[in-house]
Amino acid sequence: MKIAPLFEVPTELADPSGSKCAIVLTTRIRLARNLTGSPFPGWAKEAQRSAMLAESLAVVAELPQMKKGLSLTVDELSDLEKQILVERHLISRELSNAKRGAGVVISRDQSAAVMINEEDHLRIQVMRAGFQLKKAWNAINTIDSELEEKLNYAFSPTLGYLTACPTNLGTGMRASAMMHLPALVISSQMEKVVRAVNQLGMAVRGLFGEGSDASGSIFQISNQTTLGESEEDIIKRLSSVLNTIIEHELNARAKLLEADSSKLFDKIGRAFGILQNGRLLTSAEAMNLLSLVRLGVDLNVFPEVRRPVIDRLFIEAQPGHIQYAAHGAFESARRDQLRAQFLRTEIASFGPPDFNVTGKN
Amino acid sequence: MKIAPLFEVPTELADPSGSKCAIVLTTRIRLARNLTGSPFPGWAKEAQRSAMLAESLAVVAELPQMKKGLSLTVDELSDLEKQILVERHLISRELSNAKRGAGVVISRDQSAAVMINEEDHLRIQVMRAGFQLKKAWNAINTIDSELEEKLNYAFSPTLGYLTACPTNLGTGMRASAMMHLPALVISSQMEKVVRAVNQLGMAVRGLFGEGSDASGSIFQISNQTTLGESEEDIIKRLSSVLNTIIEHELNARAKLLEADSSKLFDKIGRAFGILQNGRLLTSAEAMNLLSLVRLGVDLNVFPEVRRPVIDRLFIEAQPGHIQYAAHGAFESARRDQLRAQFLRTEIASFGPPDFNVTGKN
Repeated sequence: MKIAPLFEVPTELADPSGSKCAIVLTTRIRLARNLTGSPFPGWAKEAQRSAMLAESLAVVAELPQMKKGLSLTVDELSDLEKQILVERHLISRELSNAKRGAGVVISRDQSAAVMINEEDHLRIQVMRAGFQLKKAWNAINTIDSELEEKLNYAFSPTLGYLTACPTNLGTGMRASAMMHLPALVISSQMEKVVRAVNQLGMAVRGLFGEGSDASGSIFQISNQTTLGESEEDIIKRLSSVLNTIIEHELNARAKLLEADSSKLFDKIGRAFGILQNGRLLTSAEAMNLLSLVRLGVDLNVFPEVRRPVIDRLFIEAQPGHIQYAAHGAFESARRDQLRAQFLRTEIASFGPPDFNVTGKN
Repeated sequence: MKIAPLFEVPTELADPSGSKCAIVLTTRIRLARNLTGSPFPGWAKEAQRSAMLAESLAVVAELPQMKKGLSLTVDELSDLEKQILVERHLISRELSNAKRGAGVVISRDQSAAVMINEEDHLRIQVMRAGFQLKKAWNAINTIDSELEEKLNYAFSPTLGYLTACPTNLGTGMRASAMMHLPALVISSQMEKVVRAVNQLGMAVRGLFGEGSDASGSIFQISNQTTLGESEEDIIKRLSSVLNTIIEHELNARAKLLEADSSKLFDKIGRAFGILQNGRLLTSAEAMNLLSLVRLGVDLNVFPEVRRPVIDRLFIEAQPGHIQYAAHGAFESARRDQLRAQFLRTEIASFGPPDFNVTGKN
């Protein structure tokens, strides 16, 4: 099955950890690019989209970063395969719903992907584990430059890169970080944080972007504007906002521990106990339980070596992955059973929590 | 400390088990008796009560059943000691609140107790593990006959035994069973059962009698009338009601297993996981979790050998016992912490649940 290699979730992208990096799960940057002489995908006829797809797929797949990667057209993918790519943030929901003439090229280590004929002709993405905005920017900038040599980007000297939607005009860049903010959620401070972040021109979304909820206390923070600022400036500004949020999360953790560490440890212990022994787990509950166990790693209740396991489970506990692992399409109640079984098995190797520790924070 | 031996909760009273007995935790019978020539405790002056107490304590303590037992006056007990006796169902809340001139004699194995100057001069009680109404009746009838030889019971040939409250007049007997009915609670059938039981002249109460709630899905079923029926007839009628309730509980369990065993096993698994890993547990939550693990024993998820442990924990997780074990008086939040710690330690010896079983029921 073509998609099988995708199951080897990469670990070699791991970030050299530290409490700040522990809060930022992943960093992503995407660039929206369009080619001259062809209508935007939303306006193009099927034949135009197909021609564009064939041409771009070939060029993108030849990039050195895409060596031994996957080149996929949307119409050759099953619904389940598309769902898995969405759950891995390798394609967008929009692309998974696209008609003929859309596709994606994914690098072998899944750290880079280029969607073709999503909202724009090209959507280039680079993902890194941890807080690595600069590294992600260098990587995506290299890909972008290499493509620019071979393709005719639609570019205006006054406006910058032209895009299907005016909100992307200019740099066409959206840089984002997936942040794990359990203490801000527990202490009901997220609303305040969202307001402050919005005022700084940044957007806050759930794990799966616009309109998705924040189960697992995971939030995606990204720049909202793409015009009137260089990429480096946007990244600098976003970094500063992320650092401020990290400080707030660390303060919230310190306060929770100071006010009543039993209460916090009780939440973590229960989450672990339910993961170990539950027989039915919805996706949202699983995320919330994993989130608390991950906080347990941050507080030294579980050893650091468990972190990559939990971060992998955040993805593998999603409905598509659960069904793919069980080789079938299952309705929600059966999925909840399979998910509980899967998580019980994974968590079984964890030793008992050790609450006789002083948290890092 | 005088009360220490009470901590050896007896196990030798255990009932030869079976699914019916598993549902009836304990059987209790009490007889209300008063002596001629002395006002009821509620009307008596302190000197009269004290005289009555001294005389009765001596007579009761001499019973062969009370050999090496405890003779206690209420005013020599601390609040915590009284609370422990209430939690063990050895004295009533009323007696624990009584002023000078009240007391209790408790048999060494805690299966028999005689309260002096509670609402009546004497309240004789016999308790047995499991569904043992006849054995309990034989035991209490023996004690009653022995006391009757030495004391002048207030008795009317037409009305029977005279009591302070007319609701006890006649036999002065209240026979009761403590029943574990988790499936009727889960499937929301208890209201219906309570109505039916009431119509048969029986009362349904929570674990600690009138006005107490039914945490742990434990209910006390007892006769309401004491007049116009012999003790044997009351016991026969109560037995029949208890058997009907047992059938209903077993049916409810079968239906829950048939409809969705995962859902039931999920509840049991989570309860076990929280007992194993929780850091804060209220008394009510602990009862409910233990109740589900006990249901797990009934369904072979845990071995039968765990049942007496759980039945002991139902008592030892009560606030008085938690404080006594920790040698101090603690406020509620600290008690919840101590309770969680105590239960974690006790549950640690349990192996993992085994859900690959077909329930007995």
